[in-house]
Amino acid sequence: MKNLLVIGIGAGDPDYLTLQAVKAIGRTDAFLVIGKGEEKQDLVRLRQEMLAEHGRPGHRVVEVSDPERDRTSPAYTESVEDWRSRRADLFEDFLRDDLGPDETGALLVWGDPSLYDSTIASVEDVLARGRVPFEYAVIPGISSVSALAARHRIGLNRVGRPVTVTTGRRLAEGLPELPEDVAVMLDARTAFAGVAEADQAEVDIYWGAYVGTEDELLLSGRLAEVGPKILELRAEARERKGWIMDTYLLRPGRRVLSRTPDA
Amino acid sequence: MKNLLVIGIGAGDPDYLTLQAVKAIGRTDAFLVIGKGEEKQDLVRLRQEMLAEHGRPGHRVVEVSDPERDRTSPAYTESVEDWRSRRADLFEDFLRDDLGPDETGALLVWGDPSLYDSTIASVEDVLARGRVPFEYAVIPGISSVSALAARHRIGLNRVGRPVTVTTGRRLAEGLPELPEDVAVMLDARTAFAGVAEADQAEVDIYWGAYVGTEDELLLSGRLAEVGPKILELRAEARERKGWIMDTYLLRPGRRVLSRTPDA
Repeated sequence: MKNLLVIGIGAGDPDYLTLQAVKAIGRTDAFLVIGKGEEKQDLVRLRQEMLAEHGRPGHRVVEVSDPERDRTSPAYTESVEDWRSRRADLFEDFLRDDLGPDETGALLVWGDPSLYDSTIASVEDVLARGRVPFEYAVIPGISSVSALAARHRIGLNRVGRPVTVTTGRRLAEGLPELPEDVAVMLDARTAFAGVAEADQAEVDIYWGAYVGTEDELLLSGRLAEVGPKILELRAEARERKGWIMDTYLLRPGRRVLSRTPDA
Repeated sequence: MKNLLVIGIGAGDPDYLTLQAVKAIGRTDAFLVIGKGEEKQDLVRLRQEMLAEHGRPGHRVVEVSDPERDRTSPAYTESVEDWRSRRADLFEDFLRDDLGPDETGALLVWGDPSLYDSTIASVEDVLARGRVPFEYAVIPGISSVSALAARHRIGLNRVGRPVTVTTGRRLAEGLPELPEDVAVMLDARTAFAGVAEADQAEVDIYWGAYVGTEDELLLSGRLAEVGPKILELRAEARERKGWIMDTYLLRPGRRVLSRTPDA
């Protein structure tokens, strides 16, 4: 039986790799690597270094281009699902054409495959089609949210309280009201700036970009105070590097929480 | 300067250790290990094996007893904070008495120190007291929620949707209404059974106990169907091993979501 591994490789620092991931990389015959265009050459280089260090001698790397995705579409879920299905085509091709019988293939996922990543869903699509029989396993990784918290030396939740992980898009839809603590991923449009102005003095933000890499940026403090600095630093870094990957935690203070419906 | 490391050691499988954690363990002079009574000897053994494998020759292990904690108190937050402060006393003693100048000490945390763990807060307490100067860093780990998702081969969130991580206590307070997807930790009282009976046929549960260990139990399906099986399996396992550590994801279907206020 062909075997597929979905390997979480952590949020940036090569040392975020778990021993389980290292072993999985070491027993992989062929890696499917999906190019995402020119802008993230740093990540490509990091991944190559991981494979050079932990891959077994003679491993193969199959490179393909990412299907185009319409990020401007208002029908966000549908456009993601269409893109996911085209990605499943790539996975199916890889399993059928690039893996010998009883060989092991791997898909590498930055961060943790269980948070805002569609790899598992696409693999399930391939499985459901049933045209190529294979087994697969998922190896968890250090998510950018977990890395962010560690670098800021904070808990994601407060004692006995919940934390919600969401996207910038979703957060923007719910603002200016802020629920309990929120960790935000995939926020291309700096939704935190939409927190009601009156509340910004009562909300703490813990922000990080390129967390765990040599380009790491960290800022934290009252949103009213550091929010503008983050916007500036973020724009600057994005300009300089050509891309940015950032995440943050918003932690409303007592006064804001007492105004929200389910506090 | 004395140096303290708060090291996330993952959710059970010794291979969940990251390379960063392995290196941190390898440069630690003294580990503070807090005993939690007789019941979790499996975890004690797992931790000992990690130190034997990754600790540097001559490392020291300082064992102390966990401060008692009143888990039955209705003033949950206060009782946690009191316990946290007594824990801070232990950390302070360790830093002052058991670490030489320029030595590195470590606190090992199961899972990820950023999720439902008070170690960082207690370390901050010690720092704020200012009686023992030290530097500290946090090393993220694979949380039980992340491990659960990997073993079930699922995402914690659905496309573009949020996921909330919370406690059994909090979930119980909010039931029978169920918000969006919820990952539940620290649920000694199987709060999932409190989901409204009419909804149980529309909610999926992904449950796991001792995830990542040789005793791992996994069950998933419609809550109406597998809920009773989980209760049975859980009681049996708890009886057999003397303790249980479990976590689960509740994923409401379309019909339940459409009834909740912010869907």
